Amino acid sequence: MIELAENRYGKSAIRVVKVIREGDRHRVRDLTVSVALEGDFEAAHTVGDNSQVIATDTMKNTVYAFAADRLTGSIEDFGLALATAFAQPQVTRTQVDIDEHQWLPIEREEGPARDAFVKIVAGLRTTRVVSGALESFVESGVRDLTVMKTAKSAFSGFPRDRYTTLPDTDDRILATKIDAVWRYVEGAGSADYDSRFEAIRGTLLASFAEHESPSVQASIWIVGKAVLEAHPEIREIRMRLPNLHHWRVDLAPFGIDDEQDVYVGTTEPHGLIEATVRRGPAG
Amino acid sequence: MIELAENRYGKSAIRVVKVIREGDRHRVRDLTVSVALEGDFEAAHTVGDNSQVIATDTMKNTVYAFAADRLTGSIEDFGLALATAFAQPQVTRTQVDIDEHQWLPIEREEGPARDAFVKIVAGLRTTRVVSGALESFVESGVRDLTVMKTAKSAFSGFPRDRYTTLPDTDDRILATKIDAVWRYVEGAGSADYDSRFEAIRGTLLASFAEHESPSVQASIWIVGKAVLEAHPEIREIRMRLPNLHHWRVDLAPFGIDDEQDVYVGTTEPHGLIEATVRRGPAG
Amino acid sequence: MIELAENRYGKSAIRVVKVIREGDRHRVRDLTVSVALEGDFEAAHTVGDNSQVIATDTMKNTVYAFAADRLTGSIEDFGLALATAFAQPQVTRTQVDIDEHQWLPIEREEGPARDAFVKIVAGLRTTRVVSGALESFVESGVRDLTVMKTAKSAFSGFPRDRYTTLPDTDDRILATKIDAVWRYVEGAGSADYDSRFEAIRGTLLASFAEHESPSVQASIWIVGKAVLEAHPEIREIRMRLPNLHHWRVDLAPFGIDDEQDVYVGTTEPHGLIEATVRRGPAG
Amino acid sequence: MIELAENRYGKSAIRVVKVIREGDRHRVRDLTVSVALEGDFEAAHTVGDNSQVIATDTMKNTVYAFAADRLTGSIEDFGLALATAFAQPQVTRTQVDIDEHQWLPIEREEGPARDAFVKIVAGLRTTRVVSGALESFVESGVRDLTVMKTAKSAFSGFPRDRYTTLPDTDDRILATKIDAVWRYVEGAGSADYDSRFEAIRGTLLASFAEHESPSVQASIWIVGKAVLEAHPEIREIRMRLPNLHHWRVDLAPFGIDDEQDVYVGTTEPHGLIEATVRRGPAG
Repeated sequence: MIELAENRYGKSAIRVVKVIREGDRHRVRDLTVSVALEGDFEAAHTVGDNSQVIATDTMKNTVYAFAADRLTGSIEDFGLALATAFAQPQVTRTQVDIDEHQWLPIEREEGPARDAFVKIVAGLRTTRVVSGALESFVESGVRDLTVMKTAKSAFSGFPRDRYTTLPDTDDRILATKIDAVWRYVEGAGSADYDSRFEAIRGTLLASFAEHESPSVQASIWIVGKAVLEAHPEIREIRMRLPNLHHWRVDLAPFGIDDEQDVYVGTTEPHGLIEATVRRGPAG
Repeated sequence: MIELAENRYGKSAIRVVKVIREGDRHRVRDLTVSVALEGDFEAAHTVGDNSQVIATDTMKNTVYAFAADRLTGSIEDFGLALATAFAQPQVTRTQVDIDEHQWLPIEREEGPARDAFVKIVAGLRTTRVVSGALESFVESGVRDLTVMKTAKSAFSGFPRDRYTTLPDTDDRILATKIDAVWRYVEGAGSADYDSRFEAIRGTLLASFAEHESPSVQASIWIVGKAVLEAHPEIREIRMRLPNLHHWRVDLAPFGIDDEQDVYVGTTEPHGLIEATVRRGPAG
Repeated sequence: MIELAENRYGKSAIRVVKVIREGDRHRVRDLTVSVALEGDFEAAHTVGDNSQVIATDTMKNTVYAFAADRLTGSIEDFGLALATAFAQPQVTRTQVDIDEHQWLPIEREEGPARDAFVKIVAGLRTTRVVSGALESFVESGVRDLTVMKTAKSAFSGFPRDRYTTLPDTDDRILATKIDAVWRYVEGAGSADYDSRFEAIRGTLLASFAEHESPSVQASIWIVGKAVLEAHPEIREIRMRLPNLHHWRVDLAPFGIDDEQDVYVGTTEPHGLIEATVRRGPAG
Repeated sequence: MIELAENRYGKSAIRVVKVIREGDRHRVRDLTVSVALEGDFEAAHTVGDNSQVIATDTMKNTVYAFAADRLTGSIEDFGLALATAFAQPQVTRTQVDIDEHQWLPIEREEGPARDAFVKIVAGLRTTRVVSGALESFVESGVRDLTVMKTAKSAFSGFPRDRYTTLPDTDDRILATKIDAVWRYVEGAGSADYDSRFEAIRGTLLASFAEHESPSVQASIWIVGKAVLEAHPEIREIRMRLPNLHHWRVDLAPFGIDDEQDVYVGTTEPHGLIEATVRRGPAG
């Protein structure tokens, strides 16, 4: 017998921009939103009955309409609002993912512009809000936050076999593009997500800057632990760090003192290190 | 107490090309390989002890070395060989992902060229081989196989609320970029993966072409069921289909009979429909 | 005095898809069109007078409307039609660029599907049509046609200085992504562009396959000359060939006979070789 | 007779990173460099004689070696140094293009980190240095500087024909991704390019922010004129502005007051407006 197993559907890459024109200065909110539903959609698959299928076009319209009325604070709060929008009997789980793109007022000698903006990319701010029968939670994070350590990074003592050619090093560049997601403890939903985000991102970057790294694995642990220690409202943080290798150029053939620090930046191939750091049962 | 939870690491985006120069004609194998290990790597994270950490650079070298000796058949067989390469005590799970890029001999009047090739992209062939203490399996698939139905696609009968503006339609373009992965039944590892792939891809495309689609959800079910029915060696197929909307242009304002079939192709936003079709217990 | 110099404007990335439903089988035309105008638009720039500015939104609508009525043959013919659409007094030059994306009927055991298609990428077919006071011409071409020679490619005898480390080689992989554009001789506008394109692409690929390459520069010359010799309707061909280096992996450290042909495919950095081959005055 | 016409070659996408470890704090220079040569390379094309062909691999090595010794100031100064590196008899023109990627010290409560950086993307800084028999010049610019005006942008008074559906508007979002290149007057080569860049980018952004825009064409003129007026060391500025349309969502069907400012951000299709603003003969 052939059967339908896990399934879900939704709308992705909804690009919504809101201009808030209150007060002295405009503000731009620029989001990419995705919605995904799970529930009792078996009839849609197996007998072509769409009577329970909220159209993905309707999801898109809902995002636009909610942006008008309910996009007044953090993306987490907007996600919480959207997650209730599809609470119909056939839906057992709603997932809303939001990325926020950052626009800052153009700086002039006279001060920041009132109604003109420049887009700044230094990692995206993200959130995932899930509302469901089995679980409900709020996660926040950063994606594509590209950082580099030019000191305090080593990699040595790893096992050597016939395929090992990498030398031990006590001084390498560590460059990575951080994807980090943290989940708040339950009941933490009523807080000020904007302040939290700034504080957590700050801890994450500061601990990245300051620690001695014997490996990317250790870096994830050290940074993750620092974030959990400083922010009791978080119960776990997951990180995914590509190791964007920077290979030192051997300048000796060119008659140049090889103490010079010239590197080739690469993206292919790359190491990829993933780990979750979590508050334990007695955490 | 703060603890290390799930973690894994490896090398991604290893670009390896092999030229096989036996026989009358060359052959090009062009792969992108990723390797990811799970196991007892806690000391690397928490105390900076790399003595159990197989370097990702070593993984890369292993892929190159194995490509010389063991890339003689399907990517699935190559993945199976690679999955054994890291079988050390601290490793509990090895995952190898491979994409194959297709190069065909250049066609000339005199026949196919001996040693010149053109790259053809019509979806990538993929595999994932997992070898582990808890599970071992071989999966195969296609990614980014972009297809379109210009008839036999409808979407109607969905619920309408205040945010619903999409009209019912009994005739729309259905365009999608198929990501499909199928898992073989256990013990199926010794088969001819190349023939299997061609046959399964053929069934998938033919059923996509022939069925009447009342929704993308129903299309996944119909195509998945057709694949499972025709190929007993598969125990499940997972599909992920974006709905790449093609909006009919209203030509009436230009004085043109709107029976004309002109569409705007879009990618943002897109529907995203995911489902698994599986052989049940008595399957 | 500050003045306005060269200027032009238009609409880019117009994605238009047309389904032709005549006859036994559907046909999909999938184009990306750009339009750019030059002319007397000084007042729009310097005094904000838009009375001569054909809106780029109107250009988009014109492309859609023309697709309904006039997209019945080659993209060159469609470009020629579009190039006349903006022939207003203030316009001195209209440039239309079109890329065609290829959809082929899905192949089944019973033969090609009537109304289902798969997208095949093996280089895009392109055209540029210019209609203007100073010049009018039709160009056709291919873009991103990715090809590889696994034999008959060398590079040696180049000068060596203190920065030269590349060894001479008489056997390397030559991989490139061909961008080629050819211009037809004047008065050649009435021909069958589809047949021409197939024939010219065929010559280009066959000569790429067959020639002995001492350098990418020589390859451009040899291929370009072959195309001009075989196709008197062309007066020049311009080519732009990145050298997508494939570096042979040294397998000796792994105890493997280094006659094995394993390469690392790269895209950064890449050589970039550009040249025009042309019929001379007595050509 | 078939002949070789315009030709050039070089190395592109050379990714070089330099860490400067002098003083209290490290500094990261992250460049993408391209080199292109023109000259007497006919023999390489037509008779396969490479004796005059400086290998592109040598160009890459030269960039690395020069980065060690001569990358001590602006990218313009580095480009000027590189432009002399290939001054051999057969070379008649050397073009060096450089993009700089921006890394800023990670900010911590205790102040900026000494040796840890975050990548910030807010448009790339670029330069082109040309040294040749016919012309030599230095250009600087920005690429992909993404900006938005949420007020003071209109577009009306354009001609209407049967294909025109866009309404006049006196209030639209103007969003664009600025590519701007300015050329310095001759003899201006000895200046402080870093200060110049900051000042010119500042003028460009401030004038973008402040002006009333009746069209993108007028915006280019107004911004370009402001830059030339404030910076006598520039003789011309070329700009290329896509019009990244933001379409206001009609919220009336959802029962929402349509004064709300919700937009759909799009990239396809887009307007594309290009113009050069130049100092005239008496400029």
